[in-house]
Amino acid sequence: MQNNLQDTIALLARMPAVLDAFLRDLPETWTRCNEGEKTWSAFDIVGHLIHGERTDWTPRAKMILQFGESKAFEPFDRWAQERESHGKSLAQLLDEFARLRSENLNELRALNLKPADLARRGFHPALAVVTLSQLLATWAAHDLTHLHQISRVMAHRYREAVGPWSAYLGVLHCAGHSAPA
Amino acid sequence: MQNNLQDTIALLARMPAVLDAFLRDLPETWTRCNEGEKTWSAFDIVGHLIHGERTDWTPRAKMILQFGESKAFEPFDRWAQERESHGKSLAQLLDEFARLRSENLNELRALNLKPADLARRGFHPALAVVTLSQLLATWAAHDLTHLHQISRVMAHRYREAVGPWSAYLGVLHCAGHSAPA
Repeated sequence: MQNNLQDTIALLARMPAVLDAFLRDLPETWTRCNEGEKTWSAFDIVGHLIHGERTDWTPRAKMILQFGESKAFEPFDRWAQERESHGKSLAQLLDEFARLRSENLNELRALNLKPADLARRGFHPALAVVTLSQLLATWAAHDLTHLHQISRVMAHRYREAVGPWSAYLGVLHCAGHSAPA
Repeated sequence: MQNNLQDTIALLARMPAVLDAFLRDLPETWTRCNEGEKTWSAFDIVGHLIHGERTDWTPRAKMILQFGESKAFEPFDRWAQERESHGKSLAQLLDEFARLRSENLNELRALNLKPADLARRGFHPALAVVTLSQLLATWAAHDLTHLHQISRVMAHRYREAVGPWSAYLGVLHCAGHSAPA
């Protein structure tokens, strides 16, 4: 299965609304809880997604089109949100994410990418050669990895509360970790 | 951490809107894909959640209040949605889920549960003694386990498409499974 550009955009376009329905005005006991030291809450994750919109996906797509493999992407700062989200409310972050995502998808659509463009290659500082098609598929899968993570982080809060049902709840057995994209 | 009734209700109340934002009108390439034979798509999972609303959560809560440990819950049919979702559209399922969830939460609120009620015990056919508090925490964690699952099922579709980035995408390394609740 290759990246399907229309399907990728369909998923990317709705993620701000998904996170909004999930997180806006939810008690902070849910949105600020995490899985322990050096782990992220839903609030942290939205900040991370914002940083990706600013520095990762469309900037890297444009680098591939402009420089190909001749110039490596900037490394992604996985802890940028600690600094950038400071003092903001979750509602502000959700608004910011929605605005940036919308702008970035407008930019992506304006590139009017053809199959030959999607096959173009860039250079990732750790992964070496990657294609534009892989970058765009990763953008969508990255949304899913963090929705998956938010579900897990929140469920962690009720790990004890569910009693013996924990045996049946897959989310409590997930050790899936996210790492820099 | 015990089940906090207000927090549990806050999460349960928004899940229909989350799934609506996520799935309604999304291409079927996303909503009907699964992880292989005998695994579930997002469409299947919404059907499973509907069956839970009909037969699991509030019926079991009422059984605990009425019969305590003297009568075991009905076993949950984990494949009921194959029969019950047949011929329906995803939009119909989303509407049905939203309606049932809303009705069930109205019923739950009307029970006006006190701490002593939450400590009451019932009998699960496989897990033996459980409390009403554990049942309600599980209702919320069960939503999260299936949101976690839907994210994973969809990401599976792009397992190859992301190329070397698969190393960084936690959702592609999740072996979390859901089982009957």
